[in-house]
Amino acid sequence: MTLNKQQLTLNCDMGESFGSWSMGADEDVMPHVDMANIACGFHASDPNVMHDTITLANDNDVDIGAHPGYADLQGFGRRSISMTGDEITNMVIYQVGALQALCRAQYTDISYIKPHGALYNDMMKSDAIFRAVVKAAALFKVPLMILASQENEKYLEIADDYDVPLLFEAFADRLYQDDGLLTPRTQPNAVLKSEHAILEQVRTLADSGRVKTASGGYILLEADTICVHGDNEESIALIQKIRQSLYAGGN
Amino acid sequence: MTLNKQQLTLNCDMGESFGSWSMGADEDVMPHVDMANIACGFHASDPNVMHDTITLANDNDVDIGAHPGYADLQGFGRRSISMTGDEITNMVIYQVGALQALCRAQYTDISYIKPHGALYNDMMKSDAIFRAVVKAAALFKVPLMILASQENEKYLEIADDYDVPLLFEAFADRLYQDDGLLTPRTQPNAVLKSEHAILEQVRTLADSGRVKTASGGYILLEADTICVHGDNEESIALIQKIRQSLYAGGN
Amino acid sequence: MTLNKQQLTLNCDMGESFGSWSMGADEDVMPHVDMANIACGFHASDPNVMHDTITLANDNDVDIGAHPGYADLQGFGRRSISMTGDEITNMVIYQVGALQALCRAQYTDISYIKPHGALYNDMMKSDAIFRAVVKAAALFKVPLMILASQENEKYLEIADDYDVPLLFEAFADRLYQDDGLLTPRTQPNAVLKSEHAILEQVRTLADSGRVKTASGGYILLEADTICVHGDNEESIALIQKIRQSLYAGGN
Amino acid sequence: MTLNKQQLTLNCDMGESFGSWSMGADEDVMPHVDMANIACGFHASDPNVMHDTITLANDNDVDIGAHPGYADLQGFGRRSISMTGDEITNMVIYQVGALQALCRAQYTDISYIKPHGALYNDMMKSDAIFRAVVKAAALFKVPLMILASQENEKYLEIADDYDVPLLFEAFADRLYQDDGLLTPRTQPNAVLKSEHAILEQVRTLADSGRVKTASGGYILLEADTICVHGDNEESIALIQKIRQSLYAGGN
Repeated sequence: MTLNKQQLTLNCDMGESFGSWSMGADEDVMPHVDMANIACGFHASDPNVMHDTITLANDNDVDIGAHPGYADLQGFGRRSISMTGDEITNMVIYQVGALQALCRAQYTDISYIKPHGALYNDMMKSDAIFRAVVKAAALFKVPLMILASQENEKYLEIADDYDVPLLFEAFADRLYQDDGLLTPRTQPNAVLKSEHAILEQVRTLADSGRVKTASGGYILLEADTICVHGDNEESIALIQKIRQSLYAGGN
Repeated sequence: MTLNKQQLTLNCDMGESFGSWSMGADEDVMPHVDMANIACGFHASDPNVMHDTITLANDNDVDIGAHPGYADLQGFGRRSISMTGDEITNMVIYQVGALQALCRAQYTDISYIKPHGALYNDMMKSDAIFRAVVKAAALFKVPLMILASQENEKYLEIADDYDVPLLFEAFADRLYQDDGLLTPRTQPNAVLKSEHAILEQVRTLADSGRVKTASGGYILLEADTICVHGDNEESIALIQKIRQSLYAGGN
Repeated sequence: MTLNKQQLTLNCDMGESFGSWSMGADEDVMPHVDMANIACGFHASDPNVMHDTITLANDNDVDIGAHPGYADLQGFGRRSISMTGDEITNMVIYQVGALQALCRAQYTDISYIKPHGALYNDMMKSDAIFRAVVKAAALFKVPLMILASQENEKYLEIADDYDVPLLFEAFADRLYQDDGLLTPRTQPNAVLKSEHAILEQVRTLADSGRVKTASGGYILLEADTICVHGDNEESIALIQKIRQSLYAGGN
Repeated sequence: MTLNKQQLTLNCDMGESFGSWSMGADEDVMPHVDMANIACGFHASDPNVMHDTITLANDNDVDIGAHPGYADLQGFGRRSISMTGDEITNMVIYQVGALQALCRAQYTDISYIKPHGALYNDMMKSDAIFRAVVKAAALFKVPLMILASQENEKYLEIADDYDVPLLFEAFADRLYQDDGLLTPRTQPNAVLKSEHAILEQVRTLADSGRVKTASGGYILLEADTICVHGDNEESIALIQKIRQSLYAGGN
């Protein structure tokens, strides 16, 4: 298979089980994505889940990304925890180092880092937190995945200080606003419901690097990868259609 | 200073603080030891304590060892947790990988691995658990530190299967039995109380590779390093005397 | 103690979700059982899951039992943790007190205590641990649920010292041995697979206070309640049949 | 509400050790205070520390207050965690219920509730969080201790909705502003350093229900209790002087 010209890949959060609790249909999703964001034990996962998810990614030739989060199992890393920049750097290095070692035990390695949940959101809102995460990524010499927006340049400039490449991700099923930000989930139309609309958003992004916004217009959005979710059969079927759509059409 | 011919070094558990709780006089002990066993966040420590302890070891030219333990903060890793060999391997790799990454962020690396508390004891009692730990050490290509005993050969044979060198540690203040094992702490004379007896034990070990046992006789004990404790002023003064004793006497 | 036929109730572990992870089909099972063993946050559950499970039990007129376990989320309380008797008493009081307060906030209360997993097993094996749990139960003046066996009398004598009534539970789907103990899960026939055999075991227990053993004979087994599992549709259908069986036939 | 001079008590955070880590000089402080705020296991303490601290309070005839906090051991409950009001109510009920049960095991009970750290601060800033805590306190029918300020009336009105009495606490060593709030710790003069100034603040509060502010003037401050800290010998000596000062002069 040949990836489309923009190399628009599919990434998915994986390895979010914990002990006796399972989450996500990782085995069913893995064959249909390009990049697996593997949780690192602070907001989800544990050393055994991490090991098994690495095996699964290896078996499916899927790139492995470290998916570090705040230390909050009960809140699944979705609640901000106030930390200094240095504390965040240490916390990210700890988690990514742990995953990297488990990867090396299976003769593979991490290919990128994508922060999870509240850490992801905080990084996009605070330059200090973004810098703290970039510093951690610099140690591992891998790209950092962040939210694609109209401010890509700003983040690239900061990341350049540390020689850290960025990967920008877009969402297949979220409605964009004219300023390039996502429509907040508090608004009723935040999430695209129809399969048609979702596939169209992916095609537009892949073909022309643009997305349609809430106002009906189009804006440019430079993205490298699309975030998909694999919670159930329906969502996995959708991932397959998104993928076919990306491979079709002469890209 | 020249180390004695047997290169009998001093190792000490470090970085056992956690969040707002502090433990150990790390800053006072560090200048007087050769090897710092740094806790990795499962039984004690956290990413920030690990970072700071690495800095302290670096500043004092002290070798860094990973000191992984069972996931049990409340029990300080002193309670066994039943796990399969694979689970133990994953758990040790996770912790050592995390510490290694934090080391590399400060341009240093781990030099060895020494399991903590119940994991250390379980490893000495169960070949399956020992193998599980050795497998983890093999990934990092560093020696594993274990208890010196009359069975050193048995452990060396297993470790050889994985090309893992072993470091054997003896205790300065514990009374040995004729079979080379430590007198259990349940017995009143298990711990040497007098400074004279402790220093004599160290000297005998350094000079002739032997220890005096409970019966008054001597047994051979091949050891590479001596475990010391740095909890208070008194113990730190003792460490200094042990060290002077090792450097003196023409070794 | 004479078995009261009408008292053969069904009890089921509930409230085993944790944060974003869900476990068990509590809403579907609750209408079909008499007693809900609610996890207390140490091996599973959290204050919100506990609150919601209490509401569900209330809505279905189901008795609430505290289901305390070892502090081990990753191991789901299935791994023993070495603790003194006093430590176990404190730990059980803590968990049961927390659940009781959440019950009272909804104008109900706990009716009994049933330890979970490794704590349950350890209590059946060690008189010291059994006593530690009984001491905790005495504070709440509620019965303690334990495994029905040929040794009911031994446990009753200890519990009497603390004025704690006991509830004995039997298993619908486990094969009993001639000594009244369960056939270990390591043996292939440990679990009854056929619906017919399970329903027959329940009927025999309800009608004559006996169970058929692996050797084909029958032994007396005094039991007050039967432990059922509600993980999926199949097991819930089975619970309904067990219940119908208990209500039919003149009980 | 009229300030009763005799009611100006001393309260102190206690039971903040955790597992092998100790914090605070509880044994030395307990004889010199009236109220012990005992941590409940989420930000500090564990069932054994709680048990021992209750014993110590009992032995010294000191009132016991539940001191619940956010679930954040590493951060010692000093970091806000975003939670709904219902989640906070459940969390506080869980912790207070656990402590109450451990109290009852020693024939005593909790006398009040004082939230800890970030939960305390959040409660003073957000009416929704304050209400959530008050709802939990209502269940236990004990007073809630909060920060004394010029807004006491506002909090009393909300607490009255739930029939929860309030206890207002003032600080012996913090500089007040004209609006009755504490000078932020970011300012250099936030903490009173001289023993003379601290004792004067206590005397003024006890004698006239007023405090001197940063501007040099005086404001009325209705307080029931003074928060003291017992971390070291110096602070314990100060507590004794504060106490002598309160008992002298006709109070």
